[in-house]
Amino acid sequence: MSKGVTKQSVDYSKWYTDVVLKAELADYGPVKGTMIIRPYGYTIWEKIKEAADNMFKETGHVNAYFPMFIPESFMKKEAEHVEGFAPECAVVTHGGGKKLEESLYIRPTSETIIWSAYKKWINSYRDLPILINQWANVVRWEMRTRLFLRTTEFLWQEGHTAHATAEEAEIETKKMVEVYRQLAEDYMAMPVWVGVKTDAEKFAGAVHTYCIEAMMGDKKALQAGTSHNLGQNFAKAFDVTFLSKDNKQEYVYATSWGVSTRLVGGLIMCHGDDKGLVLPPKVAPYHVVIIPIWRKEEDRVAIMEKVDLLTKEFKEKGIRYFVDDNPQQSPGWKFNQWEMKGVPLRMEIGPKDVEKGHTVIVRRDIKSKEFIPFKESSDYIKNLLPIIQDGLFQKALKFREENTHVVENYDDFKTALNKGGFIKVFWAGSGKDEEKIQKETKATVRCIPFEQNDGTGTCFYTGKPADKIAIFAKSY
Amino acid sequence: MSKGVTKQSVDYSKWYTDVVLKAELADYGPVKGTMIIRPYGYTIWEKIKEAADNMFKETGHVNAYFPMFIPESFMKKEAEHVEGFAPECAVVTHGGGKKLEESLYIRPTSETIIWSAYKKWINSYRDLPILINQWANVVRWEMRTRLFLRTTEFLWQEGHTAHATAEEAEIETKKMVEVYRQLAEDYMAMPVWVGVKTDAEKFAGAVHTYCIEAMMGDKKALQAGTSHNLGQNFAKAFDVTFLSKDNKQEYVYATSWGVSTRLVGGLIMCHGDDKGLVLPPKVAPYHVVIIPIWRKEEDRVAIMEKVDLLTKEFKEKGIRYFVDDNPQQSPGWKFNQWEMKGVPLRMEIGPKDVEKGHTVIVRRDIKSKEFIPFKESSDYIKNLLPIIQDGLFQKALKFREENTHVVENYDDFKTALNKGGFIKVFWAGSGKDEEKIQKETKATVRCIPFEQNDGTGTCFYTGKPADKIAIFAKSY
Repeated sequence: MSKGVTKQSVDYSKWYTDVVLKAELADYGPVKGTMIIRPYGYTIWEKIKEAADNMFKETGHVNAYFPMFIPESFMKKEAEHVEGFAPECAVVTHGGGKKLEESLYIRPTSETIIWSAYKKWINSYRDLPILINQWANVVRWEMRTRLFLRTTEFLWQEGHTAHATAEEAEIETKKMVEVYRQLAEDYMAMPVWVGVKTDAEKFAGAVHTYCIEAMMGDKKALQAGTSHNLGQNFAKAFDVTFLSKDNKQEYVYATSWGVSTRLVGGLIMCHGDDKGLVLPPKVAPYHVVIIPIWRKEEDRVAIMEKVDLLTKEFKEKGIRYFVDDNPQQSPGWKFNQWEMKGVPLRMEIGPKDVEKGHTVIVRRDIKSKEFIPFKESSDYIKNLLPIIQDGLFQKALKFREENTHVVENYDDFKTALNKGGFIKVFWAGSGKDEEKIQKETKATVRCIPFEQNDGTGTCFYTGKPADKIAIFAKSY
Repeated sequence: MSKGVTKQSVDYSKWYTDVVLKAELADYGPVKGTMIIRPYGYTIWEKIKEAADNMFKETGHVNAYFPMFIPESFMKKEAEHVEGFAPECAVVTHGGGKKLEESLYIRPTSETIIWSAYKKWINSYRDLPILINQWANVVRWEMRTRLFLRTTEFLWQEGHTAHATAEEAEIETKKMVEVYRQLAEDYMAMPVWVGVKTDAEKFAGAVHTYCIEAMMGDKKALQAGTSHNLGQNFAKAFDVTFLSKDNKQEYVYATSWGVSTRLVGGLIMCHGDDKGLVLPPKVAPYHVVIIPIWRKEEDRVAIMEKVDLLTKEFKEKGIRYFVDDNPQQSPGWKFNQWEMKGVPLRMEIGPKDVEKGHTVIVRRDIKSKEFIPFKESSDYIKNLLPIIQDGLFQKALKFREENTHVVENYDDFKTALNKGGFIKVFWAGSGKDEEKIQKETKATVRCIPFEQNDGTGTCFYTGKPADKIAIFAKSY
């Protein structure tokens, strides 16, 4: 367990799996494609979830829970939706010892079940908007498992809102992708491009899809969250109308938006290094691990007295800590183990440190080592956490900028792609062009960023005049 | 929607469903047996969940997540378990567009999937104890739906712990039923009997089961939480052994324990009245609803200024509030609606109240009406909340005591049962005796309480000497 992980440069994919398994974030379930989220990994998810949930509530949303069983007939009501999702569904055919009259699909996403409920709840403009979110498990059949990134069952949240006007729905869709940007950048220290998906990449049933896209340590892109403007598609499929202020029956406008446990995979690949995980303090289960070091019992007693004083202060100051005083493992083993687990800070206290009245504080991110007087230690840590948080963000941003290539023609595009990274281009191509590029290079348009350089140029692929910058990359 | 609920005395069961639907706690899902938990009901569940989760963490537990798909073969490994659960499972036979080689059961509970993982994680006594909880959805096929009480899919938590000794497992089992007692009594204001189930009523696969049992408004019992000592049954079924300190391979000891969204049903039936829901402050989405009352715009402005001042204080003092300033509904309609929804306090502010410098505060539980000076209003509410919380508990306790009958023979038992309530008896009967009593009277042993009167007596049914008191009742 303590042997370390494969180097990123040797095999990035193996490095990833090593980190997930050895840092005890997750494990494989017995059914192919399924994942067990272990306590350490789940606590990271809880921190992400808590931050997201608070932001959802601050923006006026409430939580609810809808059933996971979707009647087969519902799945088929929205044409693009069924085409996109039905082939990857798990299907329940038996229940309570009997064959069912109608098969039940386990939700791959909940638009259909939720809009069948909204039909009952919405009569007039007074019932709008509905701003509901749910935290739930969903199932999409996967043959090639990648823990956190691609599993048959995963955990996520899905917001489903209903509005009286197209404008309101559009404002909501944009608001939520901005919430996701904040979640990624301010909590996970993971810089993202925010933009719109091309038609080829948008959600099955959406008018358009906004997304956040992050760069991973292997320079590939990860779609980390999406927010869909569904227009009136689901309202029409489920016949959900409302009496407007002008006394007309109109179809309701919809949005949906989600992030999933995939974010944990993004976190690992955004910050991890050859020693394992590196966690931003805001989503770390522990901010600091305290490792008391002793040989003689009298030393242990003196050290643990100091540890007790410190942890009391930590509690008061909201510093999350773990004391690893397991006598069966050596300090060196513990150092490696907790580096693997990405705890932002390690505090060592041995007999000499007690004598000298200080603690040893080691940063996971830059490997610095400082001797800090006891009395100052908790304040020092409290002040250091936001610095580490920001440092990780800046480092990841620098990495992304260094690996973003601006090209003007398809040859340079292919050359740049071989180096890896994001490719920034003027783009005026069609869905068919995208398809051709993907076939030849495996790269796709990750998004048309909201943030555009002014001006116009020439499409790198079609040679047509273009007024939009697009980000291409190979992706997870 | 505003027409009120059926009277409890007319039809308790209809009263219950009316409250659930009209207070917008839940709704029926499209698949028979399924339930939509609406935002107001879900928020109550969130409050219960938060209290429980905090207590679990304080007692050393961590959260994790295990897959919901259980291979058919796993279900069959523990003989009693499969017999108890297999007939009520939902079965997935198709996934990703293909028929599966092995059918997958959707978890009715997760002992089997979790113990197959523990087999991988446990090698030596150093790996023990494992103290894991998960929050999840589970499926048990139900033909007769009762929202929150009996639904095909429901939400719950399930703790699954692994220990080196039988003693430790027993301590854990008892600790968690005590946590449930606190959850029920201290948060939900719902008094419970804590005790052990008879063999006939214990969990399929357990050595013994502890439980909390509450009395509902119709005097029937509700099993509100269970904690199982599983002994070595699951360790043997999944071959989970560990190397003990004495260097021997031994089977691991297990516990499991759970509470579910059923608790929301218990809450409704423990405190509700003919006006609808009555919520204990600790689990109420809002402590107070503020209803501004005006006709002229100038009054509205003056009132809303006061409301803004008050809500600012509420935020600081942790008072959860909702301002119902919807101009489309009358104050009277709102009073009824929020009484239906069980908000502990209603605050009215009209032009005359502004003039006189006070607010009108009405208690949901005892219908009292007080005029409180503005400046004292937030402190008044803050101080009143624990009084309401305790009052609801005392009222429910009194109701239970008044409806608990002590009887000494089977005739009196049947007479008492006709009046409804709990029946307290000396008991030395067998499983077969229980079965006969249940057939004749529909009453079952709810538990053998931990809290026993000293002394011995004669079993009310068998006439044998008995040293145990049992609680019988009809139950949900």
